[in-house]
Amino acid sequence: MNAKVWLVGAGPGDPELLTLKAVRALGQAAVVMIDDLVNPAILQHCPDARVIAVGKRGGCRSTPQAFIQRLMLRHARQGRCVVRLKGGDPCIFGRGGEEACWLQARGIEVEVVNGITAGLAGATQCGIPLTLRGISRGVTLVTAHTQDDSPLNWQALAASATTLVIYMGVARLADIQQQLLAAGMPGSTPVAMIENASLPGQRACRSPLYQLLQRAAEFELKSPAVLVIGEVVNAAGALELQPQALDGVALDLVFAQPGTPLALLAQ
Amino acid sequence: MNAKVWLVGAGPGDPELLTLKAVRALGQAAVVMIDDLVNPAILQHCPDARVIAVGKRGGCRSTPQAFIQRLMLRHARQGRCVVRLKGGDPCIFGRGGEEACWLQARGIEVEVVNGITAGLAGATQCGIPLTLRGISRGVTLVTAHTQDDSPLNWQALAASATTLVIYMGVARLADIQQQLLAAGMPGSTPVAMIENASLPGQRACRSPLYQLLQRAAEFELKSPAVLVIGEVVNAAGALELQPQALDGVALDLVFAQPGTPLALLAQ
Repeated sequence: MNAKVWLVGAGPGDPELLTLKAVRALGQAAVVMIDDLVNPAILQHCPDARVIAVGKRGGCRSTPQAFIQRLMLRHARQGRCVVRLKGGDPCIFGRGGEEACWLQARGIEVEVVNGITAGLAGATQCGIPLTLRGISRGVTLVTAHTQDDSPLNWQALAASATTLVIYMGVARLADIQQQLLAAGMPGSTPVAMIENASLPGQRACRSPLYQLLQRAAEFELKSPAVLVIGEVVNAAGALELQPQALDGVALDLVFAQPGTPLALLAQ
Repeated sequence: MNAKVWLVGAGPGDPELLTLKAVRALGQAAVVMIDDLVNPAILQHCPDARVIAVGKRGGCRSTPQAFIQRLMLRHARQGRCVVRLKGGDPCIFGRGGEEACWLQARGIEVEVVNGITAGLAGATQCGIPLTLRGISRGVTLVTAHTQDDSPLNWQALAASATTLVIYMGVARLADIQQQLLAAGMPGSTPVAMIENASLPGQRACRSPLYQLLQRAAEFELKSPAVLVIGEVVNAAGALELQPQALDGVALDLVFAQPGTPLALLAQ
């Protein structure tokens, strides 16, 4: 195989949400570098590749970004086909843009393969359409992670009339709630908190914005999770988790009252 | 096979951007209802299914939404497994939420399969990361289509500091430009216009916002196209189309000046 780096979106977790192109890239890989949040089940598509874990997770021991980049470069320069597997999509909060640019500047061929992003998959599994005619004409994906130093205008996000999907927000719930309320978003705005989007262990809980902290604490919300904020969360039909996604756990939450946790009640 | 309706995202056009789950759904389908914008190459995964074209396109003869829904219902009630193939993702401007709700209210089992949305794939093929640390901490997807009667707050969209991706905007370029400029977005803001995202016929062109109409006219921009608006369009490395996506057409646009059309120069 030719030397090349593929930056591949592994999707949100469900191994079936991988694209055919990602499968093809994995089949060609001599080296696969895999992030923490990627479901290892996906490695079934590269049984002969050397797999290197290069996870990064807030607060834990992690692999420095510069080291990951140099490692990709070294393997590619040695003539190997490298796949870097990233959770979700490589260019939605995945640093794919930075890595592609850095490698290309060093003469390495790079190809990016899109993946399904966790916010989309999580919402879908909860029966929440991110856009809905007459309710929401768009969707905004943002990260609450503060190592990113680009600005966020909460006032504009609250006023945008788009569904808001917030990644990496679990540690910053108080700030998110306070900023959105201060920006004029009604306290009654429904929020879905979705943990482990699309995985068998997916859990989801709904709350009005003004009760966000209390509900999250009761629910024991943990990372990784996405927040979906907007009227689509309460839209007719939007409250039924897709039962087949949850490994046989039967769910029927269509008639849940607003504010009722959508947690997996059956065990 | 059991009666069921799958609402399946066919992705942006490139048949390799289909998910494994979509392939599985197609393999089970007795009836496949396919939208206009879906690449028919995807039908290779359902050689034995009955295929029904139910396209809708602005300005052309089209299949009424109510008819499509009744058709899905009829086939499902006759015990058939139905796949409704939609361009991109079913719940991002795809009416998936409405259709799922309508069918579920009539006792039909529905499963939604996510797809890669055209705005994401088009940007990736042009080397544009939708988010980029220090430049853009989020991305907003909106439709310019006006049959959707939910509000859009252009002022908020311009102020959000997220990358803006506009679907179905070709017929409304003048309005989009005027609204964003009136909302205070700098005229120098770079815009990428991407036609036929991810398909061999993909074409892309870049313009500062203030020259949008003129450049689009010179480029002869046609539907379907997405607009990507924000500084990521000019980010280092963001201007190189992924050559492998374009069926052997060699492209090297890394050194293009801002404002230079990114059109396929080679034929």
